[in-house]
Amino acid sequence: MKLAIYGFGNLGRGTELAATAAEDIELTGIFTRRSPEKVKSAAGTPVYSAEEINAHSDEIDVLAVCCGSAFDLPLLSPRLAKSFNIVDSFDDHTMIKTHFDRVNSAAVKAGTAAVISAGWDPGLFSLARLYARCILPAGETYTFWGRGVSQGHSDAVRHISGVRDARAYTVPCGRLLRAAENGEKIPTAHTRLHTRECVVVASENADRAETERQIRALPHYFYGYDTSVKFISAEEMKNEHGGLPHGGEVIRNGSTGKNGENTASIKYTLKLGSNPEFTGSVMCAFARAAYRLSQNGETGCKTAFDIPPAYLLPLGSERFYENLL
Amino acid sequence: MKLAIYGFGNLGRGTELAATAAEDIELTGIFTRRSPEKVKSAAGTPVYSAEEINAHSDEIDVLAVCCGSAFDLPLLSPRLAKSFNIVDSFDDHTMIKTHFDRVNSAAVKAGTAAVISAGWDPGLFSLARLYARCILPAGETYTFWGRGVSQGHSDAVRHISGVRDARAYTVPCGRLLRAAENGEKIPTAHTRLHTRECVVVASENADRAETERQIRALPHYFYGYDTSVKFISAEEMKNEHGGLPHGGEVIRNGSTGKNGENTASIKYTLKLGSNPEFTGSVMCAFARAAYRLSQNGETGCKTAFDIPPAYLLPLGSERFYENLL
Repeated sequence: MKLAIYGFGNLGRGTELAATAAEDIELTGIFTRRSPEKVKSAAGTPVYSAEEINAHSDEIDVLAVCCGSAFDLPLLSPRLAKSFNIVDSFDDHTMIKTHFDRVNSAAVKAGTAAVISAGWDPGLFSLARLYARCILPAGETYTFWGRGVSQGHSDAVRHISGVRDARAYTVPCGRLLRAAENGEKIPTAHTRLHTRECVVVASENADRAETERQIRALPHYFYGYDTSVKFISAEEMKNEHGGLPHGGEVIRNGSTGKNGENTASIKYTLKLGSNPEFTGSVMCAFARAAYRLSQNGETGCKTAFDIPPAYLLPLGSERFYENLL
Repeated sequence: MKLAIYGFGNLGRGTELAATAAEDIELTGIFTRRSPEKVKSAAGTPVYSAEEINAHSDEIDVLAVCCGSAFDLPLLSPRLAKSFNIVDSFDDHTMIKTHFDRVNSAAVKAGTAAVISAGWDPGLFSLARLYARCILPAGETYTFWGRGVSQGHSDAVRHISGVRDARAYTVPCGRLLRAAENGEKIPTAHTRLHTRECVVVASENADRAETERQIRALPHYFYGYDTSVKFISAEEMKNEHGGLPHGGEVIRNGSTGKNGENTASIKYTLKLGSNPEFTGSVMCAFARAAYRLSQNGETGCKTAFDIPPAYLLPLGSERFYENLL
């Protein structure tokens, strides 16, 4: 399978490394919206200008669209699905239906196959929630994220005046996490299950109290959460907050039996040293699904829910099937 | 969906309770190989003789074949797939390919849909292994079972001469489990990761030494494991070993990055108060898949790997789709 990458920030770089590690994927190009000569790939993949992409369509079986969900993917995924089989990791849960419809419409018209929201949440966590809910109708599902760096939240903080650099950590409430792991019933609101920790390098002469107030008040991102803001030096930021770790847990505590007398709990846990590298790995696996769908003549948009798990197997390695069962 | 149950031991009883709890399933009958008048259903489901099943085919969209993997399913699943869409939870990993081929051949000829090995292992654990392996090609996967009662193993012991009743416990090696959870590399052989503990009520005049020898020698089940066999009284069996708890973990410790410099771990954990009730719950979810496959005109045998996860959603409840993504 010939894979290309569109967009070359953290996620694009993670996807390049994941594609390089996959024996069945040939990475044929990286398409950047910056000047190609200023972009250096980690694995020697050719880098082209995004504008040139249509000239390379013969070299692309599937295109991994590695751009932000807030501003880029809503435009780019439907546009690129007109010419390519695509995979993206669109991650705004409240907008998935809208994104799906737009990509589906473009892909059906063009006769291409698209897989959206193929990351870990949405993506793997969605699968954990679906299987658990379908099997245990009586019960409660909890999703915990972190401890980890939220890139979207970090970006949002960096846009606030007085901020030179920032990382926003999502931190699960340890007490509620342990309670859920012990089968107890807990609140479900994300604002109760998590706190936010921001580390900020302030600009010179910044009004720190005002900067902190603005961060805490940011709707959708921090408002309603127990949020801490800590000002640190640029050096400490570099030394202590350089990585992009993340992870989390999906827990379903349910019951079985005539009167629910037996407990049953299903837990899915991720611990990730690098969020963008892992998300890129998920995208590469679902890129195979887009390829197989396309080979089968199926068109339109799919999510992880629509895809037989075997479609993620390395191409030509269907021999794994039996070993993994 | 009209579901019927064939075989009414522990698993059949668990499946009855699971089907009763599912809002979209109408349980139309239980087919037993014992005398129907001696069998009492928990939820007032009509009980029939297994021999009568063909007279009830109008009342059966999917048949859950709730019998043992060692002796019953290899014959019954292919036979019943000639007349019904079926689901089973065949759990002998080494024989799945053979079982698949036999059921597939029968189902393709008859134009029925069959889903085999739909339990938690094989089944949910298979899915955890597949997704994790496809996403993290560099890494190691470990499957731990227990501590819990293995029904297949208990069933196998009960077929040995001199055994009146038996429970076989699968016990994970705590030291290796903790090491794997901490990301360490450990051996992968199931025989190293687990021990087996059998508690047995002997028949009168049984040759206990010979019974024990036969248990330890049973291929696929106990041979190669550190297996203990303890003979106990019927009373102790009833008082101390009445429950059927189980569980386990699938762990994949992998890495991402140019030189594998970032760790990534995926863990899937089950804690089950009642193994047969939970397995029955899994079978009910995959019965929906058999039903949907059949409705789509697809025939032959499938496993969890071949089935789009959305096929497990309660019928008519596709509205869950978006919430779970």
